[in-house]
Amino acid sequence: QRTGYPETIFGSGKSANQIVGIINVLKEQEPCVLCTRIGKSKAAKIVKAIPAVHYFEEAKCLVVGQMPKPITRGSIAIVTAGTSDIPVAEEAAVTAEVFGNRVERVFDVGVAGIQRLFAKLDVIRQANVIILAAGMDGALASVVGGLVSQSVIALPTSIGYGSNFHGVSALLTMLNSCAEGVSVVNIDNGFGAAYCASVINRNN
Amino acid sequence: QRTGYPETIFGSGKSANQIVGIINVLKEQEPCVLCTRIGKSKAAKIVKAIPAVHYFEEAKCLVVGQMPKPITRGSIAIVTAGTSDIPVAEEAAVTAEVFGNRVERVFDVGVAGIQRLFAKLDVIRQANVIILAAGMDGALASVVGGLVSQSVIALPTSIGYGSNFHGVSALLTMLNSCAEGVSVVNIDNGFGAAYCASVINRNN
Amino acid sequence: QRTGYPETIFGSGKSANQIVGIINVLKEQEPCVLCTRIGKSKAAKIVKAIPAVHYFEEAKCLVVGQMPKPITRGSIAIVTAGTSDIPVAEEAAVTAEVFGNRVERVFDVGVAGIQRLFAKLDVIRQANVIILAAGMDGALASVVGGLVSQSVIALPTSIGYGSNFHGVSALLTMLNSCAEGVSVVNIDNGFGAAYCASVINRNN
Amino acid sequence: QRTGYPETIFGSGKSANQIVGIINVLKEQEPCVLCTRIGKSKAAKIVKAIPAVHYFEEAKCLVVGQMPKPITRGSIAIVTAGTSDIPVAEEAAVTAEVFGNRVERVFDVGVAGIQRLFAKLDVIRQANVIILAAGMDGALASVVGGLVSQSVIALPTSIGYGSNFHGVSALLTMLNSCAEGVSVVNIDNGFGAAYCASVINRNN
Amino acid sequence: QRTGYPETIFGSGKSANQIVGIINVLKEQEPCVLCTRIGKSKAAKIVKAIPAVHYFEEAKCLVVGQMPKPITRGSIAIVTAGTSDIPVAEEAAVTAEVFGNRVERVFDVGVAGIQRLFAKLDVIRQANVIILAAGMDGALASVVGGLVSQSVIALPTSIGYGSNFHGVSALLTMLNSCAEGVSVVNIDNGFGAAYCASVINRNN
Amino acid sequence: QRTGYPETIFGSGKSANQIVGIINVLKEQEPCVLCTRIGKSKAAKIVKAIPAVHYFEEAKCLVVGQMPKPITRGSIAIVTAGTSDIPVAEEAAVTAEVFGNRVERVFDVGVAGIQRLFAKLDVIRQANVIILAAGMDGALASVVGGLVSQSVIALPTSIGYGSNFHGVSALLTMLNSCAEGVSVVNIDNGFGAAYCASVINRNN
Amino acid sequence: QRTGYPETIFGSGKSANQIVGIINVLKEQEPCVLCTRIGKSKAAKIVKAIPAVHYFEEAKCLVVGQMPKPITRGSIAIVTAGTSDIPVAEEAAVTAEVFGNRVERVFDVGVAGIQRLFAKLDVIRQANVIILAAGMDGALASVVGGLVSQSVIALPTSIGYGSNFHGVSALLTMLNSCAEGVSVVNIDNGFGAAYCASVINRNN
Amino acid sequence: QRTGYPETIFGSGKSANQIVGIINVLKEQEPCVLCTRIGKSKAAKIVKAIPAVHYFEEAKCLVVGQMPKPITRGSIAIVTAGTSDIPVAEEAAVTAEVFGNRVERVFDVGVAGIQRLFAKLDVIRQANVIILAAGMDGALASVVGGLVSQSVIALPTSIGYGSNFHGVSALLTMLNSCAEGVSVVNIDNGFGAAYCASVINRNN
Ligand SMILES: Nc1ncnc2c1ncn2[C@@H]1O[C@H](COP(=O)(O)O)[C@@H](O)[C@H]1O
Ligand SMILES: Nc1ncnc2c1ncn2[C@@H]1O[C@H](COP(=O)(O)O)[C@@H](O)[C@H]1O
Ligand SMILES: Nc1ncnc2c1ncn2[C@@H]1O[C@H](COP(=O)(O)O)[C@@H](O)[C@H]1O
Ligand SMILES: Nc1ncnc2c1ncn2[C@@H]1O[C@H](COP(=O)(O)O)[C@@H](O)[C@H]1O
Ligand SMILES: [Mg+2]
Ligand SMILES: [Mg+2]
Ligand SMILES: [Mg+2]
Ligand SMILES: [Mg+2]
Ligand SMILES: [Mg+2]
Ligand SMILES: [Mg+2]
Ligand SMILES: [Mg+2]
Ligand SMILES: [Mg+2]
Repeated sequence: QRTGYPETIFGSGKSANQIVGIINVLKEQEPCVLCTRIGKSKAAKIVKAIPAVHYFEEAKCLVVGQMPKPITRGSIAIVTAGTSDIPVAEEAAVTAEVFGNRVERVFDVGVAGIQRLFAKLDVIRQANVIILAAGMDGALASVVGGLVSQSVIALPTSIGYGSNFHGVSALLTMLNSCAEGVSVVNIDNGFGAAYCASVINRNN
Repeated sequence: QRTGYPETIFGSGKSANQIVGIINVLKEQEPCVLCTRIGKSKAAKIVKAIPAVHYFEEAKCLVVGQMPKPITRGSIAIVTAGTSDIPVAEEAAVTAEVFGNRVERVFDVGVAGIQRLFAKLDVIRQANVIILAAGMDGALASVVGGLVSQSVIALPTSIGYGSNFHGVSALLTMLNSCAEGVSVVNIDNGFGAAYCASVINRNN
Repeated sequence: QRTGYPETIFGSGKSANQIVGIINVLKEQEPCVLCTRIGKSKAAKIVKAIPAVHYFEEAKCLVVGQMPKPITRGSIAIVTAGTSDIPVAEEAAVTAEVFGNRVERVFDVGVAGIQRLFAKLDVIRQANVIILAAGMDGALASVVGGLVSQSVIALPTSIGYGSNFHGVSALLTMLNSCAEGVSVVNIDNGFGAAYCASVINRNN
Repeated sequence: QRTGYPETIFGSGKSANQIVGIINVLKEQEPCVLCTRIGKSKAAKIVKAIPAVHYFEEAKCLVVGQMPKPITRGSIAIVTAGTSDIPVAEEAAVTAEVFGNRVERVFDVGVAGIQRLFAKLDVIRQANVIILAAGMDGALASVVGGLVSQSVIALPTSIGYGSNFHGVSALLTMLNSCAEGVSVVNIDNGFGAAYCASVINRNN
Repeated sequence: QRTGYPETIFGSGKSANQIVGIINVLKEQEPCVLCTRIGKSKAAKIVKAIPAVHYFEEAKCLVVGQMPKPITRGSIAIVTAGTSDIPVAEEAAVTAEVFGNRVERVFDVGVAGIQRLFAKLDVIRQANVIILAAGMDGALASVVGGLVSQSVIALPTSIGYGSNFHGVSALLTMLNSCAEGVSVVNIDNGFGAAYCASVINRNN
Repeated sequence: QRTGYPETIFGSGKSANQIVGIINVLKEQEPCVLCTRIGKSKAAKIVKAIPAVHYFEEAKCLVVGQMPKPITRGSIAIVTAGTSDIPVAEEAAVTAEVFGNRVERVFDVGVAGIQRLFAKLDVIRQANVIILAAGMDGALASVVGGLVSQSVIALPTSIGYGSNFHGVSALLTMLNSCAEGVSVVNIDNGFGAAYCASVINRNN
Repeated sequence: QRTGYPETIFGSGKSANQIVGIINVLKEQEPCVLCTRIGKSKAAKIVKAIPAVHYFEEAKCLVVGQMPKPITRGSIAIVTAGTSDIPVAEEAAVTAEVFGNRVERVFDVGVAGIQRLFAKLDVIRQANVIILAAGMDGALASVVGGLVSQSVIALPTSIGYGSNFHGVSALLTMLNSCAEGVSVVNIDNGFGAAYCASVINRNN
Repeated sequence: QRTGYPETIFGSGKSANQIVGIINVLKEQEPCVLCTRIGKSKAAKIVKAIPAVHYFEEAKCLVVGQMPKPITRGSIAIVTAGTSDIPVAEEAAVTAEVFGNRVERVFDVGVAGIQRLFAKLDVIRQANVIILAAGMDGALASVVGGLVSQSVIALPTSIGYGSNFHGVSALLTMLNSCAEGVSVVNIDNGFGAAYCASVINRNN
């Protein structure tokens, strides 16, 4: 049962050479291949070997072949609490775009300065699905979850220190969110959040 | 921004008297009220005070007023790995039905006997959204997630012992699922899984 | 270095007899004695032996002697996310009152329904110190912390289930709060939160 | 609701370039900007680009513009158990000074050599608020908390090894302190401790 | 290699009947048998079957046969932080006495009221070995450890709630104690602490 | 009681020089010596000093002397969920071969794409013992365990991120496996899995 | 792929009625059915309804129909460290016997009195497979594992208190055992240990 | 109350310059100063500045001034399970020697090859106090503890991987040791183990 989404390579732990090898096989059969978790210097080596790729530095994503046009009617809003959450959010954003979604970025609207969030609420509410990326207290999930009626994918990030335990505090906050309609993916799993959101957005 | 779903009372930690009080207020304004986490003896007291309620024993749910008719075109499949996961799955099922969804129950198809799962795969694939309830190893999420292209809500249960740590093993399995399109709710949170699934199913 | 506050007995793990014994010693020297963590049936036994006590059932607190009049100019606002947090909040409230503070109760204004919180923001902002009691996601601390400029004492409660881990999720949220000016006490430590708030309120 | 405190940039995870950019925007509107978590070599790059900054190496803090004069009547005592806790204490001290507080440093008075602590008790007691920074056993909070009647902000540090778990042992000690009037901030959060102390000190 | 100490039965999880059976075997060969972890009602049953036993209710210990006379020159001081730690301390005290040690009890001298501790310091310093029983913050180990030059056995108790995690906070404090000469036994292991102390005291 | 297996050196934490020294002693007495956990550059130094060694780069294993011929009638199947698990699986494979076993490698058949697993099921079922190496969700153990009747050694790997906690999620999944006949070794312990499998395979 | 072993019912969490129902279905098709985790009073109810069952009280196991005769040539040794581990060991023993194995019980030979273990070593070494059940320190696995060359299944039990964390200390000891040829099952999983041992013993 | 032991500097986290500074102050007043946790290159810098020091590379210890002669009648045996535990054991050994103790080293006698341990038992039993250093399963503490009647200080090391969790598995094994007379220090705390042992050895 094919999902119809482009093939994806998880770049972490693979060498540039290995990735080039996999791309060369896949690009014969696929119009578009997505590689995630590709750091800057690894990307440089891959780009040298396969020029027809586009590298998204902040997202650490690399797209081989034609970047797909948005084909969904509705959009996915990707919201972050802080600026440090943006790399994870960008992994989600590039993934969602590669999967044919319209994407609306709403960054740095954490609940400790809730007026910034309210200023963007209309934009958020126009989306079909909402991804909420937050580290530290992860409280964004509960606040936005309570303000919208769409599906919310909570995306905990590993941003924080001390008793944050590399994202555990945000993960637990989100799993225990008092707001309804919130489900959660793994810490820093921008790709997974986008995948879930895409499946929901496809139905609209 | 109203979701349009019936009001819900979380029964755990509230006395029968308190619940009767809340129901009496809500039932004036709402055609249907759902109470979750109501044990058998607490339910008996409430039923005595408010006869027009229906009690679902296995789900530990109590519905006040008219049980809504299914209004969605598509259905939610609620799948369990074992028979011990059924109470949590039933909380999800009754919630989903109260929220107007068609529900398909597929119980006891854990991956350790994978042929039972395959026998039900057609039924599962006909649903719009799939809830997977599993305790212990929680492996159902990865297997079914890989076999379907719909949204999957993984619902870890606290069934197990020893290094299960009251549901933690299943929760972690599901958060780390290799299958795409799987998001997760809190341990034993049947209500939350159904809520998420309902929001997705509404769009179809 | 005396704090000037009434003596307190921590009732948990002490028998009614033992508590009566301690009270009988203390009440000779102290105009007012506070006992915390006294369940209903234990309280009944103590009240029988020492009639001049007042029992606060929800707070599980028992005050021996004259309840002090409020002597602070400013007040302490005690805010809860849910109704289940009220017993812990009441332990804080009764303690604060016994310590001579004016207390403002603002209950059930959790962030998943943020409009209820905003409706009470003026009341909260009039206080000198704010205690925020929340379980589950503990997100109240971050939202209110960002909306006020006073001292905030975050009081995690053990309300929740599953990956709440008896209050750990709320505790971690609060320790990692993005809002400034928030410090934290132990899970369910209403007494401690009130003590900290009293010391701050005394200075005003 | 403005707090009146200088803007702060959390330097960790931001490049020198990014920080220079943010400073350049903020310094137009703010007489003083504080940057925390700036290592030595990152600081050198920033100082090159913006000469009018002062770098506090041990505190890893960088202050842009005019260092504020102390404006509070009372002071904040910042106490450490060991010498290794000093960097975290200095983050607290510089923050408190930037926020206009008088600061009294009392370093290396851990409870394993309690006479050193008693020698400094008078100094500590003259402060309005006390920050206690300690790693390893974190026992300083309980001892000092019992000896003073002011507000105590306990600041666990990540100093230690083995079952210290990067500060968890000190954090738990402080959350479970038997001394009254002690509240806690995140591990190594010198900035947060100073912020809380400033808000309390402002009232005096 | 015999230690020369009386045989001990760990009573927890054994029925009164089983214990009576074991005692009946052992008392033929041993002048004195110690049973620990015997609750009040189980003790009553054993006393009925074997009258020549002495039951120490607070210690939950039962001694069969002749209680040994103190044979050591020096003594073991058993110190507690609070009154709730006394049952664990009494398990240690009775064990130490059964093993022929002189025992000095110094109870309720927790560091949050350090003057009570100093009032007893002379008594503590006259002992050969010191057992420190404390729950919650466990800070007693660091303070006393720094004030004495003898061997200190730290005995964490499970007294506390919330982030105490049934004794983990005290255990970690003690393992990370900054004071030298402190070693640690399991949570609530009064028997083990006394055993270690006896071996050391035997050498003097 | 000799096992009859070649001596093994655990290379991690030993310098090239130290390993050369140990090999030089052992190779006098043993026809074959296995060194595990030898990185590429350490291996290069050892090969320079002792030319008669064979280095297995992916397995990080180094075999001194004659590689043993397979002597078992039956074989051990070594199965991985992903390609990232291959290094751990290769440590198991080389160990098993050094111990005289026939080895069947079946890599990259994770349950999220279960058809790839079914395609290899015949090969797996022909083995006498099966090692299942998987990280992330570790679900392979439950699925394969349910499909075969031989002994299964589950080998969790540390592949994953976030709430994987360096292999803990896979370890817990495997310990809680609903499939029967599955036992587990430490995270990344390819050597140990192969040892256990060899002992079982010897009996056939 | 049938294993050929009798059907098993996991009794925990099922009512006597439910179990009677399942037995009545299974006993038509199976000569022998094993039910585990059946407490004394639940067993009494089942025995009343289905007289042809045999109840093993210490093992909490109930066997329906003909108890199988031992059919294996070799035996399984089931060894415990203490007497408190016997119930878990008996679950393993009864399971192994129901699966047709000869079973050798060697109880109460924990390593703290290692001479008792050595006295039984010959008996242990005559077995084909060894199950080692231990709680608390779980050290039996390392000692026996080093003394025998057969397969060892380590079975951690939840016996202990304090930092035992309900069996976690024994589980970790066993997973980290320095002895070779040791694999591990879940805490208290006597059934699982016996299943693994049976599969190995079948091959001999 | 002076212990009479040389001053110690904890070298970790201090620069060579800082350590030289502290040494220069202390060496005026003390005949001998011990510095622990000094890596090779840091040691080289210190030796350059202060030639009259002796560096113990494996122990990572540096002794300033005259190395004390053994002054105790009895000795401390320092026993390790593996060769990887030797650095921690050497920190203990050098500390004990600097504190005037005779030290007996018995290395690499882990319980997985228990005959090596028995071969050394006489040597171990001649000591007054025994330090047992072990990582991974930490089982040495239980076995040796059961074989000797002296005081045993268990010293868990961080040697291991996977579910060893940097020494936690050995720490828990030791805290839960079934052998009597065993107390425990922090993971890798060779200094602390030696300190405790010295205090006990002084009494003999
Ligand atoms: N609810 C509470 N939570 C935490 N600490 C408390 C509480 N109530 C009282 N205490 C503290 O416990 C002390 C009395 O302890 P005790 O002597 O055991 O009764 C008081 O002085 C307070 O410091
Ligand atoms: N050392 C620190 N620890 C924790 N929070 C800090 C620290 N320094 C600054 N902050 C917070 O981080 C905010 C700025 O974050 P950012 O916008 O990412 O630079 C400030 O407003 C403070 O609330
Ligand atoms: N990769 C491995 N993981 C775990 N244990 C191993 C590994 N390789 C070897 N060993 C064990 O380590 C022992 C040798 O340890 P050593 O004497 O420190 O080299 C061998 O006999 C094996 O029991
Ligand atoms: N390796 C060690 N592990 C733990 N504590 C140590 C160690 N070495 C020295 N210490 C302690 O650290 C103290 C010195 O700390 P400092 O003043 O930071 O150098 C000594 O007096 C010892 O109590
Ligand atoms: Mg919502
Ligand atoms: Mg799918
Ligand atoms: Mg604020
Ligand atoms: Mg105080
Ligand atoms: Mg001392
Ligand atoms: Mg199987
Ligand atoms: Mg062996
Ligand atoms: Mg002993």
